[in-house]
Amino acid sequence: MDKDFVIGIDIGGQTTKCGIVDARGTVLAQTVIRSDTHTDVRPYIAELAEALSRIIAEAGVEGRVRGIGVGAPNGNYYTGTIENAVNLVWGGINSIPFAKMLSEQMNGIPVSLTNDANAAAVGEMTYGAARGMKNFIMITLGTGVGSGIVINGEVVYGHDGFAGELGHTVAVRHNGRACNCGKTGCLETYASATGVARTAREWLEMSDEPSQLRSLDKITSKDVYEAAKDGDALAIKIFEFTGRILGEKFADFIEFSAPEAIVLFGGLARAKEFLTEPIQKAMDENVLPLWRGKVKLVYSQLKESDAAILGASALAWEL
Amino acid sequence: MDKDFVIGIDIGGQTTKCGIVDARGTVLAQTVIRSDTHTDVRPYIAELAEALSRIIAEAGVEGRVRGIGVGAPNGNYYTGTIENAVNLVWGGINSIPFAKMLSEQMNGIPVSLTNDANAAAVGEMTYGAARGMKNFIMITLGTGVGSGIVINGEVVYGHDGFAGELGHTVAVRHNGRACNCGKTGCLETYASATGVARTAREWLEMSDEPSQLRSLDKITSKDVYEAAKDGDALAIKIFEFTGRILGEKFADFIEFSAPEAIVLFGGLARAKEFLTEPIQKAMDENVLPLWRGKVKLVYSQLKESDAAILGASALAWEL
Repeated sequence: MDKDFVIGIDIGGQTTKCGIVDARGTVLAQTVIRSDTHTDVRPYIAELAEALSRIIAEAGVEGRVRGIGVGAPNGNYYTGTIENAVNLVWGGINSIPFAKMLSEQMNGIPVSLTNDANAAAVGEMTYGAARGMKNFIMITLGTGVGSGIVINGEVVYGHDGFAGELGHTVAVRHNGRACNCGKTGCLETYASATGVARTAREWLEMSDEPSQLRSLDKITSKDVYEAAKDGDALAIKIFEFTGRILGEKFADFIEFSAPEAIVLFGGLARAKEFLTEPIQKAMDENVLPLWRGKVKLVYSQLKESDAAILGASALAWEL
Repeated sequence: MDKDFVIGIDIGGQTTKCGIVDARGTVLAQTVIRSDTHTDVRPYIAELAEALSRIIAEAGVEGRVRGIGVGAPNGNYYTGTIENAVNLVWGGINSIPFAKMLSEQMNGIPVSLTNDANAAAVGEMTYGAARGMKNFIMITLGTGVGSGIVINGEVVYGHDGFAGELGHTVAVRHNGRACNCGKTGCLETYASATGVARTAREWLEMSDEPSQLRSLDKITSKDVYEAAKDGDALAIKIFEFTGRILGEKFADFIEFSAPEAIVLFGGLARAKEFLTEPIQKAMDENVLPLWRGKVKLVYSQLKESDAAILGASALAWEL
């Protein structure tokens, strides 16, 4: 029987999304389980395998699943392990042979594993905005800033499997913001959803400029976006600042790998009407003349609800 | 007859070095011609072809040359062209089909071309300090700062063939030094031979600190190196500053491609006894904990006089 289906699994701190996907990128069946019920990985994997068997039956593709792709925090492509993933209740230990364990539970179906941003890059290349591109950089603007770098049609994993941590390159060298990683000034302390909220809080405190954000108790990046759409000048300036920092760093990234495009994905990328212009301007001002105006800035074309599953599933086609 | 020899050509602004190389990296015969006698590329190539025929005869390898590798400023690997190379008297035009023209003059021997830093990376991987490495970044510290990035055993050329301009990533974001490229704050304005001389001049002017450099009319990086070896405190501090800037940027580069090593090459790399410690310290302070102390910092192992020829020749083995 032809094996023309794959499974995509996206493991987040709270929930795990999984789905059956065909070669066109249609999600035939999907389900969600909690990631945080078990503090040990074994019962979690047992529950996950059960959920997968259920959707395999639902989609009627028994015996026809070619492989399983997993996107997980701190997932290592080379070893199939999840390493020190402190955001997963069962993940904060040195090294879990996750791909091997899941494959065993699934009667030997091969399992490929990487981190979520790399999975998103493969998804975008297989089904989305980067179809046909051999060189691009995927930037995910969520709670943090993730990245997946594609060179010559292949995701860059580096010597140890952990390449592509562009969210932790330095955006502000002196007196930069403290980052969860222990460093200061990392790109993700400015250009993530939490970074935007942080900018809003700092700026509201620093100035007396009127803004509808002042009436809020706890500000999120979504609030800043809504305010910007209402024409709030401070909110618009926050996106200009965020876009400038992104564009400045993108220029450095372009000088590294000369991509055809930078592809933006994630919650914060929804604010594209306020981000695109400042990003493009800062990119062009900071990149070598030979690339000025030449590198495309594009946004993910994957349906947001399916994107995580599609990204992870795309890994499995390479198995 | 087996074709077990290659030719390496290193084109600089003043001189062009060429040599016959065997599979072990031995240079069997070599010669040098001027790069700047002709303002048109055709007579230059005719002279070059003549010189090559001479060393082919000298080494006795007629009919046994497999390919020719060329390292040239603004050389494009994909197209075999030299584009807007303002440092070459015949090179400042839009696009010269150099590889094709030279191959025609050499009876169809295939010619591969790239920029000098990429050629150096291939040379180091084939014959030098990066033998056996699949992921490393070559940094050439000369008049400027060049780079050749190797991922999965292959040089990164990017979408357009010009990837790897790490000397023009931004080291100092605000009030950075003006760079020849038109930008400000580029790494090469600080960490090249000319950058070191510039630091010396600036610091001598800014302070009254005694230094043997004060007695010199025109300061070069070599003067700073000699002074540091004599124990001159200011000169040593200049290398500490230079090393810190390099290390800070290397941390960003590591977060991009997770290399096994960073390989340093070029005139300024000779000052390794003053550079290694500050580079390593800044690298470790600025990189994510997962790479701390793990990425090697190594120096080129190619004999300096042969290095340029070997680097370019290594390209030809891939033909």
